[in-house]
Amino acid sequence: MTLITASSKGVFVIAVTPFTENGAIDHASIDRVTDFYFDAGADGLTILGMMGEAPKLTPGEALAVTRATLARASGKPVVVGVSAPGLAAIRDLSAAAMDLGASGVMVAPPSSLKTNEQIIAYYAQVVEAIGADVPMVLQDFPLSTNVHISPATLGTIFEAHPSIVMLKHEDWPGLAKITALREAEEKGRRRTAILTGNGGLFLPEEMRRGADGAMTGFGFPEMMRDVVALSNAGDHDRANDIFNAYLPLVRYEQQPGLGLAVRKYVLAKRGAIASAAMRKPGAPLPSVAVAEVEAMLARQARRLSELG
Amino acid sequence: MTLITASSKGVFVIAVTPFTENGAIDHASIDRVTDFYFDAGADGLTILGMMGEAPKLTPGEALAVTRATLARASGKPVVVGVSAPGLAAIRDLSAAAMDLGASGVMVAPPSSLKTNEQIIAYYAQVVEAIGADVPMVLQDFPLSTNVHISPATLGTIFEAHPSIVMLKHEDWPGLAKITALREAEEKGRRRTAILTGNGGLFLPEEMRRGADGAMTGFGFPEMMRDVVALSNAGDHDRANDIFNAYLPLVRYEQQPGLGLAVRKYVLAKRGAIASAAMRKPGAPLPSVAVAEVEAMLARQARRLSELG
Amino acid sequence: MTLITASSKGVFVIAVTPFTENGAIDHASIDRVTDFYFDAGADGLTILGMMGEAPKLTPGEALAVTRATLARASGKPVVVGVSAPGLAAIRDLSAAAMDLGASGVMVAPPSSLKTNEQIIAYYAQVVEAIGADVPMVLQDFPLSTNVHISPATLGTIFEAHPSIVMLKHEDWPGLAKITALREAEEKGRRRTAILTGNGGLFLPEEMRRGADGAMTGFGFPEMMRDVVALSNAGDHDRANDIFNAYLPLVRYEQQPGLGLAVRKYVLAKRGAIASAAMRKPGAPLPSVAVAEVEAMLARQARRLSELG
Amino acid sequence: MTLITASSKGVFVIAVTPFTENGAIDHASIDRVTDFYFDAGADGLTILGMMGEAPKLTPGEALAVTRATLARASGKPVVVGVSAPGLAAIRDLSAAAMDLGASGVMVAPPSSLKTNEQIIAYYAQVVEAIGADVPMVLQDFPLSTNVHISPATLGTIFEAHPSIVMLKHEDWPGLAKITALREAEEKGRRRTAILTGNGGLFLPEEMRRGADGAMTGFGFPEMMRDVVALSNAGDHDRANDIFNAYLPLVRYEQQPGLGLAVRKYVLAKRGAIASAAMRKPGAPLPSVAVAEVEAMLARQARRLSELG
Repeated sequence: MTLITASSKGVFVIAVTPFTENGAIDHASIDRVTDFYFDAGADGLTILGMMGEAPKLTPGEALAVTRATLARASGKPVVVGVSAPGLAAIRDLSAAAMDLGASGVMVAPPSSLKTNEQIIAYYAQVVEAIGADVPMVLQDFPLSTNVHISPATLGTIFEAHPSIVMLKHEDWPGLAKITALREAEEKGRRRTAILTGNGGLFLPEEMRRGADGAMTGFGFPEMMRDVVALSNAGDHDRANDIFNAYLPLVRYEQQPGLGLAVRKYVLAKRGAIASAAMRKPGAPLPSVAVAEVEAMLARQARRLSELG
Repeated sequence: MTLITASSKGVFVIAVTPFTENGAIDHASIDRVTDFYFDAGADGLTILGMMGEAPKLTPGEALAVTRATLARASGKPVVVGVSAPGLAAIRDLSAAAMDLGASGVMVAPPSSLKTNEQIIAYYAQVVEAIGADVPMVLQDFPLSTNVHISPATLGTIFEAHPSIVMLKHEDWPGLAKITALREAEEKGRRRTAILTGNGGLFLPEEMRRGADGAMTGFGFPEMMRDVVALSNAGDHDRANDIFNAYLPLVRYEQQPGLGLAVRKYVLAKRGAIASAAMRKPGAPLPSVAVAEVEAMLARQARRLSELG
Repeated sequence: MTLITASSKGVFVIAVTPFTENGAIDHASIDRVTDFYFDAGADGLTILGMMGEAPKLTPGEALAVTRATLARASGKPVVVGVSAPGLAAIRDLSAAAMDLGASGVMVAPPSSLKTNEQIIAYYAQVVEAIGADVPMVLQDFPLSTNVHISPATLGTIFEAHPSIVMLKHEDWPGLAKITALREAEEKGRRRTAILTGNGGLFLPEEMRRGADGAMTGFGFPEMMRDVVALSNAGDHDRANDIFNAYLPLVRYEQQPGLGLAVRKYVLAKRGAIASAAMRKPGAPLPSVAVAEVEAMLARQARRLSELG
Repeated sequence: MTLITASSKGVFVIAVTPFTENGAIDHASIDRVTDFYFDAGADGLTILGMMGEAPKLTPGEALAVTRATLARASGKPVVVGVSAPGLAAIRDLSAAAMDLGASGVMVAPPSSLKTNEQIIAYYAQVVEAIGADVPMVLQDFPLSTNVHISPATLGTIFEAHPSIVMLKHEDWPGLAKITALREAEEKGRRRTAILTGNGGLFLPEEMRRGADGAMTGFGFPEMMRDVVALSNAGDHDRANDIFNAYLPLVRYEQQPGLGLAVRKYVLAKRGAIASAAMRKPGAPLPSVAVAEVEAMLARQARRLSELG
């Protein structure tokens, strides 16, 4: 069991949950996609996130997915999303996941929170509920949660709770937030890891602003691996070449609601999962969108080949 | 087992979930409050609603509360709230509740629904998931769900799904909606039962507009029993006398977020539950509010005594 | 010209804007309703608020209403609502209103504000735009604006800007906010006046929590005058008797979207305005609602007569 | 005066409003940027949109900008945004703009609209207010307005009001909406023009789905001109080459709230406006963002040069 820390870095892929065509969990594909992600350069995985269709699972299924992924990851870091409407469910899921060997848990704020004070109080309650010894990722995704957390409020939360070791950053726009957080750390605030989301849409800029890597689920994790590595090596020109080759698909996959169908289509085509099926009410990619994706994949391959 | 139908009427009390001071489910108080509600004039109960702190329960606890309440109700109607983020959880909770002898289930729309078409599609998915043989209450509570369902959209849903036999009406303002729904029925649309919520704040007017009763949790169910009975008997003057005597407290209990603390305080004071405790993050009633409630209770008793 | 200050108190009625049946501004009724409000016990008026149909007026019409009301008020305090999507419009309206003799201006936050920091920055911009010499009322009405301002954030704003002399308090629930603000003042924060809104629905409790009066538009301003005066005199029992007599109508008028039609119906019936017409897209009160209001008015008169 | 029709097509640039450093309207730059847009391939302009900082202008300033732009456009099509909180302001602005020679007006729905029925009623009121002879663009931008209009509801509105000749399409995701609208037309519904927004982020796909062009304000209108022309000519490969060269900047400019500062920076650098200043509360581009934009511009020029 490897716990995440404030020094964690690299690419944590937000893993899909594979289903069969009739909506059952596809355990063989859990193994396959876990291998796929690590082979493509993932440093860790994050399961049961929004794009893991977590709210569609029963608690029993969520545990089964956790158990299966942790077994296959054989010691590599796996973060488990435990966001839920109530603290009891968060506490139970968190305890079970950590018992099974998870590296930490991730919690997004519920949409009922309105003021800085309420957000701060919420994370105090969560830390108390799950225990201050469990490493936590705070997911900051206002487009989905409708909760807006200012840099100063994030700082207050980080100072109060050393167990919150990482920010999953996906505010939009969010580049200024990374800069503000890093500047506050230079003035003495405790450092946290920052991995960025939004499908990687701003990854080169995020790395230069001070991010430690990516935590998102784009269907080609090797793009994130390369951009993170090249950015860390200071080769921003090459990082941008690679990034721009994938950008048309990154943009296309980042369509709210539709993106997961695109992502699963790509993963199925690449052999990482047996079926692109989403559990209901998710719908498969319409044929006109399939044609658009196929055209993008062809152009992407051509451009990557030009780049060498 | 009594199933609810489109002819159900009267007072269905939205039941609180009793907790001990340390947050555990208080099973003795489940028995006590179940008796209390029926003694005070309830025709049925609805458990695991928003004011039943359902999102704070684990699935196992939700089943335990359902089992205990159904046992104590000994055949009287009990509706079970099964709203959840995903269809799998709704299906599982619904099946378990009906197996245990529930009279029907209640489903509120998730806040992600935006257009009439999406709302209509959602209820089709829910009916498919739980089975068209399970009687359902559609909870229409825009202030909480942020989903606004027009009368015409409700009509489309009712026509498509005969198993949706009842509307829990708590739009605000909502009187015109009752009128519109009843007018549509006069023009030939299938009839559904309409029980009204919002703590009873508009109960006399709702009854005259065509409601069949109340489904809400005001701490004095006898008010609802009397107003419904007097309204049905045509004695609107007496119905309003009774209602107005309770109105200051009804209004006070209808404060979002704070209301449940008021309600539990009143129920504990009346001996219906052992403790007014709410599970975290709920907070007890501050002392200044306790003083306000006590003053209202004293005036309420005085006024009721004047009315005879 | 009387300017409002942090010591202002009493009843400021949120004035309706009278229209003729065809939607034109009814200047004769402006005179009449201005007299009516002051005769019924108003200490001041607030014009061009949300319930004054301000967004339906052109800038020229807004100025005409301001000029006419100020002329008729002949020196009694009149606050002018100047909320607008942009600072330039706020600045122009504010300057014009103060030139015409207004006692101050009122500004609600735009719904785009998300964090405490953004709210604080907004009021700094507004004070800079209109000038630090113009007395301002901060309108705190989250149900309408969707902006939630914590007591601590209000305190920060009040300390930064002495020209913000008054809070129009209509958070819901909001009693705890009054208590928190007054406690902060006891610990040394600059005092501001607090006048409460929400149609008066919690006026007796608000007065006991430390409010200085009411700023809202209930169709019977004499209720607010009496409750404020009796509360200040310590006769809370009589204050509640009066309040409770009006409460059924207060509650009915407080229905969002519908309330103004109720209010104008009552004011027209009382002779304060010639027509209950609202400018489009406002709709007149449906006949079934008229019957409900008439029944409430009859009961209200009877109850007041019983009380003597 | 050229009126827009359901057959209008091509690129209508959403024009910025130029300001001097101290916030005054910069009339010389209005002339310059108008010329710039048409020189860069615009078929028309749309002024006083959200990205034209319209809410920050007083009504007098809005008219001055309209007059100046129309004079400089000398007969080329100019659409004027007239969205406002009330119908009176919409009517006045629309009448004034059409008198000055505008080609049509654009109206976005107010965020208070919740159901399909309310949206349909709103556009009926707007058409009645401005007159059925004024060509209108319906702006469908849910990310900003929070109003979600289904394809079927758009169809109902289009059928009811022939004067609504064009859709400014910027739902996100929105490709399926274009497909649905065009399919409905094939089944007999009246055709409307569809120009797409969102900064051009999906322009190649939108053109293939049936859009007639773009109505958005990306700082390089020649990209939109070329992609629209190449798409119409069937040269999708070249269209994508051009598009992808600009995509990093398109993506960067499409950051909500920040995008206009990027756009004005680019336009000022290109000499189209004298200053990148936005009227308060807009803030200039921070230096770290300037560096990011400059790097993108350099790469963009290099890539375009490679493409020839």
